[in-house]
Amino acid sequence: MEVVENKQVIFKGYIERAPKETDMELKVNKIQLKAPKGSTAFLVKNLYLSCDPYMRALMRQGSGGHHPPYVPGQVIQGFGVSKVVDSDNPNFKPGDIISGFTGWEEYSLLKNPEQLSKIQPDDQIPLSYHLGLLGMPGFTAYVGFYEVCTPKKGEYVFVSAAAGAVGQLVGQLAKLHGCYVVGSAGSTQKVDLLKNKLGFDEAFNYKEELDLDAALKRCFPQGIDIYFDNVGGETLDTALINMRVHGRVAVCGMVSLHTYGDPQGIHNLFNLIPKRITMKGFLQSDYLHLYPQFLEHVISNYKQGKDRLHRRHE
Amino acid sequence: MEVVENKQVIFKGYIERAPKETDMELKVNKIQLKAPKGSTAFLVKNLYLSCDPYMRALMRQGSGGHHPPYVPGQVIQGFGVSKVVDSDNPNFKPGDIISGFTGWEEYSLLKNPEQLSKIQPDDQIPLSYHLGLLGMPGFTAYVGFYEVCTPKKGEYVFVSAAAGAVGQLVGQLAKLHGCYVVGSAGSTQKVDLLKNKLGFDEAFNYKEELDLDAALKRCFPQGIDIYFDNVGGETLDTALINMRVHGRVAVCGMVSLHTYGDPQGIHNLFNLIPKRITMKGFLQSDYLHLYPQFLEHVISNYKQGKDRLHRRHE
Repeated sequence: MEVVENKQVIFKGYIERAPKETDMELKVNKIQLKAPKGSTAFLVKNLYLSCDPYMRALMRQGSGGHHPPYVPGQVIQGFGVSKVVDSDNPNFKPGDIISGFTGWEEYSLLKNPEQLSKIQPDDQIPLSYHLGLLGMPGFTAYVGFYEVCTPKKGEYVFVSAAAGAVGQLVGQLAKLHGCYVVGSAGSTQKVDLLKNKLGFDEAFNYKEELDLDAALKRCFPQGIDIYFDNVGGETLDTALINMRVHGRVAVCGMVSLHTYGDPQGIHNLFNLIPKRITMKGFLQSDYLHLYPQFLEHVISNYKQGKDRLHRRHE
Repeated sequence: MEVVENKQVIFKGYIERAPKETDMELKVNKIQLKAPKGSTAFLVKNLYLSCDPYMRALMRQGSGGHHPPYVPGQVIQGFGVSKVVDSDNPNFKPGDIISGFTGWEEYSLLKNPEQLSKIQPDDQIPLSYHLGLLGMPGFTAYVGFYEVCTPKKGEYVFVSAAAGAVGQLVGQLAKLHGCYVVGSAGSTQKVDLLKNKLGFDEAFNYKEELDLDAALKRCFPQGIDIYFDNVGGETLDTALINMRVHGRVAVCGMVSLHTYGDPQGIHNLFNLIPKRITMKGFLQSDYLHLYPQFLEHVISNYKQGKDRLHRRHE
């Protein structure tokens, strides 16, 4: 029975601030490259691991999120693409490539991991895409835009953290759908990417805007129909002032709040009434029945080169 | 042509605080009891006038609400029940009783008033009910509960300002629907009314609760499925912590914010994501196609005495 070294990234303890490298520890353990008989588990070699914003919430004690928080002293968990090395499960055989929830380590013994799917080899699609465009971030963009925002052609769409894994696909889907799309991001380089490569109609660097309200009024003189909110905080508060009647806000992430115990507060919710705004929080995992149609839609568009659904992990 | 005195309540000027009697002025003008030929207008005697919380928002300059703000020096507008005295409109003849948007004055000359409806005389239903149970507040409760909250039998429902014109009907509709209902109100008398007359399962006086979160956890150990929000502010913020997965918040009024230019801020919106909460602002005027079925539902229940849909204006 082969025993090998297994490098692991261990979570050290709960934090109430932005994570630092010292909150994690690299350890080298040993692992048997064998799935125990009768376990229905399978042993995988992790090929790609994804670092995503939601993981910050799992580093807070009693995070209250959808996932249970990480356990101090244990391996950090996240989405990955992995290759089956040994299997006690009839549905998976050595050599199969899968994506799903796995550990930040070289080898993992998995049993019914969350959001497990088998990847069909495709020469045109790098495996890492299954963590971005074709993985959880891409699927979040897809269900958030189509199911939560219920977009109509010609509507005005604002996306924050627009250069992120979710935001950049939201903007591209919105353009495909015939919407007018503006993104905000935190650097000139990202703004260039949005405008010149990803096809956003307009983009701005929120760090360079003295007045966020003025920036939104400049980009949306008619107001915003759909705000895909990846950050919460001041951006959400200012977007609420600029929403149009029957506007929709998809609440996805509130990344800016992950790091703080006492957020600054949202002051403009009164707009919800006269403008009949719907704000909806969502998790992609509630929509997994749509995953096959998501893959078909995005892969088809990607291969046709109709859009630029190829940024992340390229 | 008969000319009579017409007492009027005049709006004096915009305010940023709670209204006082001195913000209005009583004037006596003259009016001809005649609808001008060719005007399609009709002259009414106002029988009942309703004073409702939304009117506060119209006293603020550039209120940004659904209605335009009041005009200083002009008669205050609101919902009323009126009797037609003279008419140049073929659809209305002297003696007809109508409800709709009218002036705070003895006589008004109306032309296409908002939410106009002709009242069918009914011995069992006092005319004033058309401003409460069968009027705008009742209809707000009806569409807010059934259309915005999409209730299911057995769900846990929290109503703030529960002894108000809207809240008390929301609670009774929720009980008819088989829900568990708790209301908050601001006096012992109101709490008694909710528990002993209106059939709420539980009620509390928020002014006597040292810890609103503890009060909600006591009343809803399982959490809240539906929060019908009539007040905003701290109550909304605390309800968000106590919502259940897939909870719904109908945002109706935010009365507590009408009086303040700079509200305190809502800090718990992060709950929207892991709990997949939908918050929806609404206006009853978007649902007027449902008005006939509303009347049928509420009048039928009222006459059968199945519930206690008879508080307001009784």
